[in-house]
Amino acid sequence: MNSVKIAEMDWVSYRDRVKHGRCKIVMPVGAIEQHGPHMSLNPDVLIPEHIACRVAERSGNMLVAPPIAYGYKSQVKSGGGNFFPGTTCVSGRSLEEYAYDVILAFMEHGNREFIVINGHYENSMFLVEAADRAVKHARLAGIELKVVLLSYWDFISEATVGKVFPEGFSGWAVEHGGVLETSIMLKIHPELVDMSRAVDIPPAEFPPYDVFPPDPSWVPESGTLSSPSKATAEKGEWILDECIEKIAKTFS
Amino acid sequence: MNSVKIAEMDWVSYRDRVKHGRCKIVMPVGAIEQHGPHMSLNPDVLIPEHIACRVAERSGNMLVAPPIAYGYKSQVKSGGGNFFPGTTCVSGRSLEEYAYDVILAFMEHGNREFIVINGHYENSMFLVEAADRAVKHARLAGIELKVVLLSYWDFISEATVGKVFPEGFSGWAVEHGGVLETSIMLKIHPELVDMSRAVDIPPAEFPPYDVFPPDPSWVPESGTLSSPSKATAEKGEWILDECIEKIAKTFS
Amino acid sequence: MNSVKIAEMDWVSYRDRVKHGRCKIVMPVGAIEQHGPHMSLNPDVLIPEHIACRVAERSGNMLVAPPIAYGYKSQVKSGGGNFFPGTTCVSGRSLEEYAYDVILAFMEHGNREFIVINGHYENSMFLVEAADRAVKHARLAGIELKVVLLSYWDFISEATVGKVFPEGFSGWAVEHGGVLETSIMLKIHPELVDMSRAVDIPPAEFPPYDVFPPDPSWVPESGTLSSPSKATAEKGEWILDECIEKIAKTFS
Amino acid sequence: MNSVKIAEMDWVSYRDRVKHGRCKIVMPVGAIEQHGPHMSLNPDVLIPEHIACRVAERSGNMLVAPPIAYGYKSQVKSGGGNFFPGTTCVSGRSLEEYAYDVILAFMEHGNREFIVINGHYENSMFLVEAADRAVKHARLAGIELKVVLLSYWDFISEATVGKVFPEGFSGWAVEHGGVLETSIMLKIHPELVDMSRAVDIPPAEFPPYDVFPPDPSWVPESGTLSSPSKATAEKGEWILDECIEKIAKTFS
Amino acid sequence: MNSVKIAEMDWVSYRDRVKHGRCKIVMPVGAIEQHGPHMSLNPDVLIPEHIACRVAERSGNMLVAPPIAYGYKSQVKSGGGNFFPGTTCVSGRSLEEYAYDVILAFMEHGNREFIVINGHYENSMFLVEAADRAVKHARLAGIELKVVLLSYWDFISEATVGKVFPEGFSGWAVEHGGVLETSIMLKIHPELVDMSRAVDIPPAEFPPYDVFPPDPSWVPESGTLSSPSKATAEKGEWILDECIEKIAKTFS
Amino acid sequence: MNSVKIAEMDWVSYRDRVKHGRCKIVMPVGAIEQHGPHMSLNPDVLIPEHIACRVAERSGNMLVAPPIAYGYKSQVKSGGGNFFPGTTCVSGRSLEEYAYDVILAFMEHGNREFIVINGHYENSMFLVEAADRAVKHARLAGIELKVVLLSYWDFISEATVGKVFPEGFSGWAVEHGGVLETSIMLKIHPELVDMSRAVDIPPAEFPPYDVFPPDPSWVPESGTLSSPSKATAEKGEWILDECIEKIAKTFS
Repeated sequence: MNSVKIAEMDWVSYRDRVKHGRCKIVMPVGAIEQHGPHMSLNPDVLIPEHIACRVAERSGNMLVAPPIAYGYKSQVKSGGGNFFPGTTCVSGRSLEEYAYDVILAFMEHGNREFIVINGHYENSMFLVEAADRAVKHARLAGIELKVVLLSYWDFISEATVGKVFPEGFSGWAVEHGGVLETSIMLKIHPELVDMSRAVDIPPAEFPPYDVFPPDPSWVPESGTLSSPSKATAEKGEWILDECIEKIAKTFS
Repeated sequence: MNSVKIAEMDWVSYRDRVKHGRCKIVMPVGAIEQHGPHMSLNPDVLIPEHIACRVAERSGNMLVAPPIAYGYKSQVKSGGGNFFPGTTCVSGRSLEEYAYDVILAFMEHGNREFIVINGHYENSMFLVEAADRAVKHARLAGIELKVVLLSYWDFISEATVGKVFPEGFSGWAVEHGGVLETSIMLKIHPELVDMSRAVDIPPAEFPPYDVFPPDPSWVPESGTLSSPSKATAEKGEWILDECIEKIAKTFS
Repeated sequence: MNSVKIAEMDWVSYRDRVKHGRCKIVMPVGAIEQHGPHMSLNPDVLIPEHIACRVAERSGNMLVAPPIAYGYKSQVKSGGGNFFPGTTCVSGRSLEEYAYDVILAFMEHGNREFIVINGHYENSMFLVEAADRAVKHARLAGIELKVVLLSYWDFISEATVGKVFPEGFSGWAVEHGGVLETSIMLKIHPELVDMSRAVDIPPAEFPPYDVFPPDPSWVPESGTLSSPSKATAEKGEWILDECIEKIAKTFS
Repeated sequence: MNSVKIAEMDWVSYRDRVKHGRCKIVMPVGAIEQHGPHMSLNPDVLIPEHIACRVAERSGNMLVAPPIAYGYKSQVKSGGGNFFPGTTCVSGRSLEEYAYDVILAFMEHGNREFIVINGHYENSMFLVEAADRAVKHARLAGIELKVVLLSYWDFISEATVGKVFPEGFSGWAVEHGGVLETSIMLKIHPELVDMSRAVDIPPAEFPPYDVFPPDPSWVPESGTLSSPSKATAEKGEWILDECIEKIAKTFS
Repeated sequence: MNSVKIAEMDWVSYRDRVKHGRCKIVMPVGAIEQHGPHMSLNPDVLIPEHIACRVAERSGNMLVAPPIAYGYKSQVKSGGGNFFPGTTCVSGRSLEEYAYDVILAFMEHGNREFIVINGHYENSMFLVEAADRAVKHARLAGIELKVVLLSYWDFISEATVGKVFPEGFSGWAVEHGGVLETSIMLKIHPELVDMSRAVDIPPAEFPPYDVFPPDPSWVPESGTLSSPSKATAEKGEWILDECIEKIAKTFS
Repeated sequence: MNSVKIAEMDWVSYRDRVKHGRCKIVMPVGAIEQHGPHMSLNPDVLIPEHIACRVAERSGNMLVAPPIAYGYKSQVKSGGGNFFPGTTCVSGRSLEEYAYDVILAFMEHGNREFIVINGHYENSMFLVEAADRAVKHARLAGIELKVVLLSYWDFISEATVGKVFPEGFSGWAVEHGGVLETSIMLKIHPELVDMSRAVDIPPAEFPPYDVFPPDPSWVPESGTLSSPSKATAEKGEWILDECIEKIAKTFS
């Protein structure tokens, strides 16, 4: 039971590790969302959980919480939209309340610092609200929490982007189910990627607004917003190495 | 990608499987809760997920949803209480809303039948409310849902109980972290059990009421409510075989 | 105005009684729920209120709050189900919020100890949440509350069960509208029982799971889950005497 | 069991009475609130329940629901304020949700018409919201509800006011615990009134605004807003006769 | 930028003004609601905002918050009802939460005193709840707030009423879109009143109860509850002068 | 009363305009948030309202709703953070519920199309949720809504950016209180800008994550995230012209 995953520890070992608030709790939050016909529905869960574990292993003072698997509703221009079969999302308030409660539950064990690693763009603002409310509620009880909130892709440098997309980068906005996420999954869960089913499409283009109910005709049929065809496990490794190193260095 | 786990399917395969509402969605719901110094914090998640997968494999018309990992607050007389480090629980309303949203999200894919497999006693009534509300909300949209809600231990026969507890059964109430859960974990995740740390105690005895804030002195120091010492993987197999067979038979 | 019922006291007398937090507030919580064609819809309210008053009279330091009459939705296997005409129930969150507010309102008068007497099984977990949240909220204001939560039937001994069911006890699960509740009502409100309408049925048997929407065919047509035919006021007296004595003794 | 009180009926009799939506459900809603040192805390519950029963007895097509006992927070200028010991009130949203749920629960039995009789001024707007939301929710299910909402005092004529207050009426605003409510209670529950404790005060005068937190010095020490000294059971009878007759006539 | 309107100040000037909690924050709360064919939909917003500004200008220690424009649902007997095109209202809980959040946001800047000026009768109880909850929440953080809640019309004297309605006053209840509001609007926003479209009607008469869904036939077709025909800017000036002077005097 | 502002119309004129669902309702949503010492707190309200009115004037089939003035909490990296005096924000759920209610209220008048113009980045996801829920709720009632959600800056072309920032554009992320918003305000509300107080700073640089509670030292003291010094009314005109023309053209 020598793990950084809290779920796999017994409570006595956990208690001894977190004593005196000396551990940071790393919380992966993801989504169950289509990522094209070539990939499983859970990259937004597995990637932040993977990064969290690697970062925790390096840091020595972090433990990884069980991921929150269901995230906020997929939006057309960032995740293809909430109408794809398999995309299985919760309301903003459910996510907010659930994450808020989880932070406060870990606080009860004496933990004071949290690093929330988000794997699904649409979660961001609801996690902001959860973190802000948790910090303020804790303060009423005389406890000072510190909650860091990050999306792992924000740690990728332009240099790495250049290496991963040698023919030019279409922008983060269309990196849903594209080279970035597919490469990472090829590295960490190749069994959940089937490149023979990858659909080669030009980057999606969207009007400068959103519409509800969403219009499925805006989205490429495959569900990805750009082509995953040039994804490789090696590219995944470059990306992960950078994210993991930087995150570990920043927060240890 | 030949799996019963929805999270591991790509969306096109999933869509083809669930077409015409022909699949039942099996939803494991658990908790992160101490189960003694000899076992990890996640048996309430892993056991229902394991059963769900085996049942789905047999049935041919079921798929397994990603488990809801954080459950309702542990109670003293069924789970040792919500004050143990590692026991990490959410409010009733968070669990209810989260489960409700997940059911309705799967409904959007055309699914009409659900089997919620609960692994944590305290979740029960909040899942009742989630199921009841989801069914009623769906009806407003002209959709008839059917949600089965079960706790796997309710499928264990007296005969199996007799085999597992040859020296007499102390009752379900104190089977927290005891022979039953430990045996199952020894069978399905032996790497998460360390029998050398198991604490041998007589079954806990409680007064016929609850008190808030809970009184930690009511609970054995180890956190289990009875002794796990006589747990074996073989006993775990007996229990699982029965649960899986009966659940598969009842709902396929 | 010499009563243990708070509702029947004037505010000055009440204030003088509860001064210095020296009184415990006993809160009966029930339900409006069918209990067969032979009995009124309110045993789950009247029984805990009766017990509360008798206990308070003995104790000298308890006062009885007006009962919360509408409880959580009746479930098939414990109350016959929420589809019977007359069964009139609220959502889990309404009950939780209402009970939570009532506890905190009594706290404002200086009261610090509460004994919630539940008369309706389905209420239990929502009262747990109300009590837990009230205690935690009070603590933010620097106030320590103590809330005891009990269901009166948990105080009945095996000896009494033996006397009441000389031909064998079918178990608590089917004691809805059966000998137990009917006997108590015959003792305390004979005008609300008409034994000539009692339907004699074998104890109900249920599958080991629940289903939503509920299936009315699971439930005996009369709505009771076992036969009330052998109910007598004398049996009711035995039960009440034991519950009242034990509860008074435990909490005075 | 020949009663207009739903709680005292068995479910079969109730079902037969409400068949075809032919009954109107009369719902008394009150409060637990101080009404001076001379009177119990429950006039706001008992008075509307009494009126409801008398109206139902006359009408032949009405049944009376169990009263909702705890109402919205007492306000200084209408009920003395929420700081008196004994005044035990819930939040607006708790009352709203609870009343909303109760209306919809009765709807499930086939009832379509409701008469909510309010006994506590402060409840009004939250009952408006409950009624409005219930009507709209029912409509989503294709059901047309009709909910009448009334405060019994609005049915008292100027002639009766003249008879009850021969020396001049100080206005409804200060009729909290004064001649009106005390007279009615003397008529229907003389055992809950002790005129020897009635405090004779001039009508309270208030500034034209409210302040939070409330200022107790605005309120007469006794808690009543005018003097109950001239209350008599006879006056109570006059008032009740008029209210009951008019309400019965208007809604039967 | 020499204004009493907070929205029109830069943050540095605002900070300097409110330092040491020396300013009172005046919060106008209104509604978007029909006021007859002769007047715009926003008198309930513009009037309290106008009064707030004039009061603040006199006082020297008040600043005016941006008005909350959308208020609680219009009721038949006070605002004509929520079914008129143009009447655009929110639920009670939305208004409550929004106002609650705004008060607490201003508290974060160091402000401790608030004067909520209500322009729409139906808002009152939801503002009561917002104010009460804000005060109590602040107290948990060790902060004492004072929130005054007023409806401007409560400051109009009988003398002024006599001058404004020389032929007799029909009562506040029917002053919706009548002489009072129209006169004020003629004074402060003549461009939003078109007296040629004013409909002359006798004061509306209503039964002593409410009904849901509301019955449009209860309401004059024009939407006003009495005639605005005799409105003049001069009368508006009398009313405003009195309200502004009294409010300024009472709270400065 | 010839206005595109709904608030300034009388209800009869409004009713005639929106008949047959032929109008689109344009809803500006903003925030009260510091924008540097040189500018008022309300650009996020005034700018979308201005654009909405100009677009509506061109289109002929649009009307402008009263703006929602208080928006979601300012974030450090987009709005300077929620700790500046003057920044006055509500919770995510308050904004969501309020906007949701407003959309549904306008729906009741027969309107079916909405264009929400957002002026405050942080509002976006909560407006997404409000729009999504409103559309789904309407559908339960058999009504199809269409809600467009846009942030005006997304309509600014690279060409215009080039003209406005001839020395190079630092990116949208730091355009808080900078050249863009200041230029627009100089054009539409020069009285609310005082360029003599504008602080010249280099563009803010932030780490690739957020932290709660926020760290004020991350933010330039002035509160703007880049320098407004080169703002001119002419630049504001260029930006507005483009936004207004494109939005009008896209949605008329």
